[in-house]
Order: sequence, then structure tokens, then C-alpha cells
Amino acid sequence: MDTQIDLAKYLLAFIQGLKEAGVSQAVISPGSRSTPLAIMLHRDPAITTYLDVDERSAAFFGLGLTKVNQQPVALVCTSGSAAANYYPAICEAEATNQPLIVLTTDRPAELQGVGAPQAMDQVNLYASHVKKMVQLALPEASATMLAYAHWQAFATTSQALIKPKGPVQINLPFREPLLPADPTLITSQKLQPIQRLAPQRQVELAPLKALFEQPGLIIVGEERSKQEAQLLMRLAAKLNWPLLGDPLTNLGDHEQNIAYLHQADLIFQAKVPTPAVILRFGRLPVTKPVMQWLTKQTCPTILVEDGSQMKDQLHQANYLIDSSVANFLAGINDLNLTPIKDDWKQKWQNYQRLAEAVVQEHVAKLPWGHSAVAALLGQQLKRQNLFLANSNSIRLVDRLSVAEDQTVQIYGNRGVNGIDGLNSTVAGITTASQRATTLLIGDLAFFHDMNGLAMIKRYQLPVTVVLLNNNGGGIFAFLSQSQLPQAEFTALFGTPQDLNFKKVAELYDFKYHRPQSPAEFVKLLNQPGQHLIEIIDDQQAPVKAWQAMVKDYQGRMAEHHAD
Amino acid sequence: MDTQIDLAKYLLAFIQGLKEAGVSQAVISPGSRSTPLAIMLHRDPAITTYLDVDERSAAFFGLGLTKVNQQPVALVCTSGSAAANYYPAICEAEATNQPLIVLTTDRPAELQGVGAPQAMDQVNLYASHVKKMVQLALPEASATMLAYAHWQAFATTSQALIKPKGPVQINLPFREPLLPADPTLITSQKLQPIQRLAPQRQVELAPLKALFEQPGLIIVGEERSKQEAQLLMRLAAKLNWPLLGDPLTNLGDHEQNIAYLHQADLIFQAKVPTPAVILRFGRLPVTKPVMQWLTKQTCPTILVEDGSQMKDQLHQANYLIDSSVANFLAGINDLNLTPIKDDWKQKWQNYQRLAEAVVQEHVAKLPWGHSAVAALLGQQLKRQNLFLANSNSIRLVDRLSVAEDQTVQIYGNRGVNGIDGLNSTVAGITTASQRATTLLIGDLAFFHDMNGLAMIKRYQLPVTVVLLNNNGGGIFAFLSQSQLPQAEFTALFGTPQDLNFKKVAELYDFKYHRPQSPAEFVKLLNQPGQHLIEIIDDQQAPVKAWQAMVKDYQGRMAEHHAD
Repeated sequence: MDTQIDLAKYLLAFIQGLKEAGVSQAVISPGSRSTPLAIMLHRDPAITTYLDVDERSAAFFGLGLTKVNQQPVALVCTSGSAAANYYPAICEAEATNQPLIVLTTDRPAELQGVGAPQAMDQVNLYASHVKKMVQLALPEASATMLAYAHWQAFATTSQALIKPKGPVQINLPFREPLLPADPTLITSQKLQPIQRLAPQRQVELAPLKALFEQPGLIIVGEERSKQEAQLLMRLAAKLNWPLLGDPLTNLGDHEQNIAYLHQADLIFQAKVPTPAVILRFGRLPVTKPVMQWLTKQTCPTILVEDGSQMKDQLHQANYLIDSSVANFLAGINDLNLTPIKDDWKQKWQNYQRLAEAVVQEHVAKLPWGHSAVAALLGQQLKRQNLFLANSNSIRLVDRLSVAEDQTVQIYGNRGVNGIDGLNSTVAGITTASQRATTLLIGDLAFFHDMNGLAMIKRYQLPVTVVLLNNNGGGIFAFLSQSQLPQAEFTALFGTPQDLNFKKVAELYDFKYHRPQSPAEFVKLLNQPGQHLIEIIDDQQAPVKAWQAMVKDYQGRMAEHHAD
Repeated sequence: MDTQIDLAKYLLAFIQGLKEAGVSQAVISPGSRSTPLAIMLHRDPAITTYLDVDERSAAFFGLGLTKVNQQPVALVCTSGSAAANYYPAICEAEATNQPLIVLTTDRPAELQGVGAPQAMDQVNLYASHVKKMVQLALPEASATMLAYAHWQAFATTSQALIKPKGPVQINLPFREPLLPADPTLITSQKLQPIQRLAPQRQVELAPLKALFEQPGLIIVGEERSKQEAQLLMRLAAKLNWPLLGDPLTNLGDHEQNIAYLHQADLIFQAKVPTPAVILRFGRLPVTKPVMQWLTKQTCPTILVEDGSQMKDQLHQANYLIDSSVANFLAGINDLNLTPIKDDWKQKWQNYQRLAEAVVQEHVAKLPWGHSAVAALLGQQLKRQNLFLANSNSIRLVDRLSVAEDQTVQIYGNRGVNGIDGLNSTVAGITTASQRATTLLIGDLAFFHDMNGLAMIKRYQLPVTVVLLNNNGGGIFAFLSQSQLPQAEFTALFGTPQDLNFKKVAELYDFKYHRPQSPAEFVKLLNQPGQHLIEIIDDQQAPVKAWQAMVKDYQGRMAEHHAD
């Protein structure tokens, strides 16, 4: 009985540390060894707990929670392969700097390495993919060990939150009995709280002032909140420079006085003006022509990262600035710049107008299918999240959408670009944002995380899935693999699943729809509840439609230059 | 073009090495970076390729293939989180010594650590859970580099096969272009083959002769083939010692002249005779009372492992023997032992008879439900595999089955005892064994790997799922967690999924059945095709049934001793 009281006290101290560092949500997967931690978290009124049987889904659900407000989220699982199922979401969290607090529970030392059931080496389980890994001591209730548990929970969670943020692991071994004492038996003894005061990070841009008074181009990558997007647009207005990003940068609802290159993927397939300086925020956006164009530029390049990691795949940046967007904008405001003239910006605006016109003309003539859906979606949603799956979905929207409704926040999993865990991530985002989410996804990615639908069903989350079904991996039709002989292509990349998605909808209590026109489709959006909207198309249609647009745009640009 | 020829040549050399070391099967998950390896494996007529979108399922499918005949199986995936999805199956392969050859493909060095898409650190990705990890050099076609690729493939696969066997990882970075040259463009140039001659391992047991002439007890753990089980039974006959195992040890179709303690889980809940020596093969069987009884024994203990790892969770073995069962039996035969008298064995046979009678009497009176199914299954199947899921399924069969049909091979995933990947493992076992498989599984484990059903559907595998549905984690009803207040228990461990499994059956083209009696149930077994047989019961029923049997047995034993 004393053991159970000690266990409870130790975990109270540990959970106090988690909470003081910012944890208020935990995703628990049921298991035996995790019992004490699961119970103590569940009993704490300041912790919201979610339950999911499939640890892979659970971890992506946790990732979705952190993506909304970057708060740390705890994951709790039992010993053994359960913890290994967290790995895909941890890799995505690492690449996108999300603070997942992975709490793996374990059998004690005497059951390690001797073939005991459900025991495996959980120390450094996630190799280089977590920022920190702590092997916690067995529960004890001495003053020293309570302070230790409190401190380690706080310190490790803090580590996840220090920029660059990222996932961490704490491995907690427990001996039997696994049931902590009843709350009535535990004398209350809250430890002195710990607080971390985050540094104010100012950025001194004076040495670069001359660069900001030349014609430049701003390139934004990575998922950005609406707030951050607003700051980036203010920056573009201030510098009078054109700006480009991708759907995830949420710059699509731009004000009229800035040159936002919404059709960058088309514009950079022809000749563009040469800037004197390039200002990049974070990793590169999804568009490939921009990346290819960048490799040929020799002007000075400034890379701004919030927590420097030198993530420049072109090895091109000359100036590295460790700053948030807000602090950077403040630094620019402090410079009292002489802004460049409007003609630089206007030149780019002309390219954007032409590209937009090409896209709109082609889209208007498209038969009903995946391209038409991608072109429509961003504008038709209201006060929602839009999640774009890998990789066709995000590419189609990047190319074919000409603007997004300003009340729509766009998300994706573009850290390691997996087709795993996307439904679960959407469940997490919907939960944390308390807004409806529409997910645009292909059939393979949707299948990969079908288990994630269980969370949407259990918590009755307002999620609409727009399923681009081409019975296989449509993305490969865009890539060099499409040059293979047909039999080889189909065997290795066509990947037909032949699943009846109406039955999937029924299984998880989603309403199923198969609209046959844009008008029918639009009526189905912005509805409460759970919906699966299936759009069937073939793998080649979007490829051909896009190739026609590129050809048309390049032709018109050639004409334009000939004038 | 030359690059593509070099790429093809390099991979031909690599694949030659894989094949010479024993690889003849590859499970491929579609992706972009893995294209060259996937194509070259697919083109090789000596390699059978399987395709699966979900890498977690794909890896467990590969595990199922290796479980049947312990041959190395290659897994192939693209870069990024795809590789992380393999982790759960790798942990199970490590714990059960299965030679999975994990071939992760990767982006080249210049795209590492700089935020390039779908790139993450794949070196040592699986930490301590693989026996060896090789970072392969980029493809080149010099004589040296072809010999290198050939050698590394052979050496790493060999490492997986050297006892104790286990998984290995080779990480293969590729640059674009990713398409290898057309086969007609490649000059054939087979390298000199490599062969490994495995050592003959004899075991000298003379120093232990005196021990084998005393009354002993043989305890067998881990999955055993029918052949190995036969050898173990011959050993028991030779020594005249009683023998115990669990369903996975496949000792259940015992000959009449040995004392196989089929009801060990019941027998060891009362007083048993004290042996003078204990002879253990591998890890402990699933029964807990035997484990608890063992902790109190002080006699000499011999542990036989095929590839010594000292996997004794009781830290009890005094003699460690590194030997296969066959070599051990040969060693015993060489000793010319004076066998002990029959009364030792007969004593144990009496316990078994009584325990068996108790189980049979109770089972005969049980209402239709999970206990009745577990009692029936092993005897009713013919010429099949029976796969027992974690953890209720295997425990119920261990307790309630009194014999298994001799043509049934039993399997399970009892390395780290996960509830993940079980459907996929069954798909792999069915494929490699070319026999039908019946899977006994609970609803949570079945849900966890629902994606595994896609493989069963695609390859039209003869699989019958017997689904023990108690709408949640029935195993916890057997454990201390059941002492929690009802609300807490349900919130954290009851885990209702509320899934309609008839719809799951329809989704994957399984025939659905819900038999209401043993007679109806038995008629459904041993049918060709894909079947889902759902048996609904409550979580408490099997617990109560078992407690009644234990009480009855203990009562009769007390009477027996009082006589």
C-alpha cells in the first residue's frame, strides 16, 4: 500500500512539472504498463486526456494538437512495440519543430534484455529524432526524488519548447503493483513551482540595411499561422518587394497592394526578372520551378529561421538570421528604409495576372475531376481549416487555386512529407482549433491512415474528407516513373487498392457523397458533421491539364517578350 | 544515360549479394526514392515481390514470411517516415530472431539535414533494434564498387542469419535520375558468387550426465515448428521427464507415452511435485503460474538457447547451452543414460488428467462465448495454421484447449507481444506456408491492423478470422486494472471501439458470420476463402469461467491430498 502511495506521489510531482512547462493535453493509448501514468493524468482536472488504441494514429493526433498552437502535448503508451508505433509522427514533429512529449512506459531494469514479455530496449528508441531522451528513475517518494521527478518533467518539456522546438522522450519504468493509491490516501504536497522566462530576442539588421533598399524577392516556406502570414504581408508592403509561398504559408488572402505570386509554379516556368537580393523565411515552398530557378541565382540570400538550423537545401544563404517573423519585422521597421519604387513590384504583378488568367481560363473549361476540385476548394470554404495531404493534393492546390478565403487556415504535414497519419493529424487539428476541417487527400494516403477515422468518429469531430480517388498513386504519373513500360508502372506504382470508399464511410458513420458537378460539390462543403466526398478521376487527367496550362503560359510569355 | 546504366549495374551486383545470402522474397511499398531498387528487384525472376502501401503492414507481412521458414525477407521503402513505419515489426523480429533485411532508400548526403523534403536522418534509424546497420555508398559501376555492393549485401544479410538471428538495415541513398537503364542496355557481368558454409555445432553434455539421471521437468517456450516439437517430445520420452509449453510450442499433439502438461496454467495453481533439475528451452511459456512457481525453485536449471542470449527473466539458469534442439537431442543420445523410473512421469500425468477433466467438465457447461470458442478451436481445425493474437486469445487457448489437431501449426507474435500488425503477419504466414490460416483475435488488435486485411484481399489468401469481440480490452478484466472504479476503468481500459465488423468484412470482401452455437461455429471452419466469424461476449465472462475452474481444481487437489 505504501508502494502505491509512493507511486502516486512521484507521479503527482512529475505531472506538476509537465503542467508548469505547459502540458495540458495527453493522448493515451491503453496498455498495462502505462496504467499508473494514465490514471494519474486522467485524474488531473487540468489535463485533457484523449484515448486512441492505435499508437501511430494517437501520435499523429497529438501532432495535430500541437500544430494549432505549438503547445506541448504528451503521448502515453505501454511498453514494447507500442512505442515504436509513435516513430512516424515523431519524425514529422522533428522536421516541423513540434513539441511532442513522448512518455513511454517500461518494465524495470531486472526485466530488460532477458526475454521478459513485452520488454525491449526503449532507451534512445528514437535515435537522433528527439531533442532529448531521459531514462527516469523508478518511483520513490523521498523529498529528493519528488523534486527530481518534478524537475525532469519540467526540464525535458522545456527542452522541447526551446527553439528550434522538437519532440523529446521520457522513458518511465514501473514495477508492479501498477495501481497508484486512491487520491483520498495521498497527503497533498505541491512542490514549489518552476517558471521559465523566455528571452526577448531582438534582431539588429543595420549591417544589412543597404540590401533592403534594393529590388528583392521574398520566398516563404513552412506552415504559417494567419497571424504570421499577416506579418509577412506587412513586411512585403514595407519593402515593396514581391512575395511568394505555397498553400501552407497562408498568404493566399493577400491585400491588393502587395504582389503575392500565387501562381509561382507557373510563373517560374518562364523567364522572370532578376532580383538583387533574396529574402527567405524557413524551408522552401513546395513549388519545384522556384527551387530550380533559385539554384541559378547568384545574388545575396538572407535566410530567416526561428531557431537557427541552417535548413537550406541549396546551401546558398549568405546571411543567417535567427528570429521570429515578428521580431524581424520590428527590426526592419527600426531601419527607416528608403523604399524602392513601385515598378519592381508592378512588373511581378503583371506576371501574376497573366498566370492567374491562364489558370482561370483553363479551369473554366475543365471537365469535372480532381483539377476542378483543387481550383475550387480554397475559395469555397468559410471559417474552416483546410488540410492538404501529400503529395498530389498540395501540389494541385498550389498550382490551380488563385486565392483562398481569408477565414481559411491551411495545414499540411510537410516535414517529411509522409502519406501516413494524415487523417489522425486532421482529427487533432480539428480538436485543438475547435473549428471544422476539410481534408483534401488521395486514396492511398487516406487508406494508409484509415484507423485515424476512429478518432473523428469517437469525438464526433466536424471533418469533411474530399477524397481524390484515382485508384492508386497519382503522384507518380507526374514523375519520371511514368516513363516505365505500362506493366511495370502499374505493378510498382499504379498501386490499385480497389477499395469501396462508400463502405469506409458507412463503417465510420460518415455521410457519403459523390457529386457530379462543381455546383453539387460546393453545396456539400461547409456542412456540420462527418462527410466523405469522393471524386473519381484517372491518374493522367491532372497531368494533361497542367501540361496544357504550362504550354499556354509559356507561349503567351514568348509572345509578350516578342512584343 | 550512363548514370542509369551504372545505377542498374550497381543494383544488379547488390541484388546478386542478397540472393546468394538467401533472399528470394521482397515486400515493396511504393514511393519515389525507392524506384531503382524496386524496379530491379521486380525485374529479377528469382525474387518474388509483394506490394503494400502501408509500410507498417508491409513489415509485419515480411515478418510473417520469415516466421514460416526463417529465410531472410527484404523490405523496401522510400525515404522519410515510411521507414519509421517499419519499426514495430523490426522490434518483434529482434525479439523473435527473425532475419528481416530492411532496405531503406534515401536522398543523398547533399540533401541531408538541410530541410530538403522527405529527408530525415536514416542512419541508425532503428537504434539498438537491428543487429547491423550499413550506410551504402552512392551507386558507381567501377569493378571495385560493384564488388563492394555485392559484398555488403551478402555480408549484411549473412549477419541477419548468424545465430542469434535478427533484423538488419541497409540504407541506400540515390541521386536522380531514379530510373535504371533498360535491361537490354546492360552488359551481363555476374560477379564471382560468395558462399557461407555454416559451422556444424555439436554439444558435449557429458559434464551434466548425472543431472539427466534425476527426476526433472522440461519447460519449453517460444514458437516451435512441428519438427522441433517432435524432437522435444522425443527428448521427453528419452529422459522420461514431464514436459510443458504453451500453444506456440506446438507440443499439444503429444504421443501417449509422454507427460505433456497441457493444463499447466491450472496445474501450477496448486501444489506440484518438486523436480531435482529443470531443463528449459528458450524463453518462458505464456503461463504465469509456472513463472511464479519457478521463482521458488532452487534446483539446478539448464537453459538451452539456439544462439545464446541468456534470455532468462528469472536470472536463474546455472548451465547455459548454446544449441539447436536437434543437436541437444543428439548430445543426450550420446550419453547412454540410465533413465529414471516411470513413477515420476506418472505422478505428473495424474495431475494433467485431473486438470484436463476439470476443464472439460466446465467447458461442456459453458454458454456460447469466447471461452467455448477457445476450447474448441485447436481440435476442430485441420491441416491449417492457427495464429493466436495478443493477449486474451493466446491465454484463453493456453488455458482451455486440451489438445490440438496434429496437422495444425500454431503461431503468434510473442516477442514483444504487441497488438499491432497481427492481420499482416497472418497474411505473410499464409503466403509463405501455402496453407490456410485461422486467426483468433480480439477486437482491439483486429482494429489496430485493419489495413493488413488489404493484403489478404489483394492476394486472395485463405484466411478465417475468428473475432472475439468484447468491444474493448478484455485482457484488462483479467488484470489488476479491473479493481479501479468502473468509470475510470471504462475511460482508460474498456476502450469501446463500437465498430460494426460486418461492414469491415464487406469492405475487404470477407464472408461474414455470427454463429450462435458450437455446432454452427464448427461448420464454418476449414472453408476456403476469406471469412470473418464474429463472436460477441462480455469482458467478464471468460474471467468468471476461469476463476470457477481454478477454484474447482484447487478444491479437488485439496481433497486428493487429504485422502
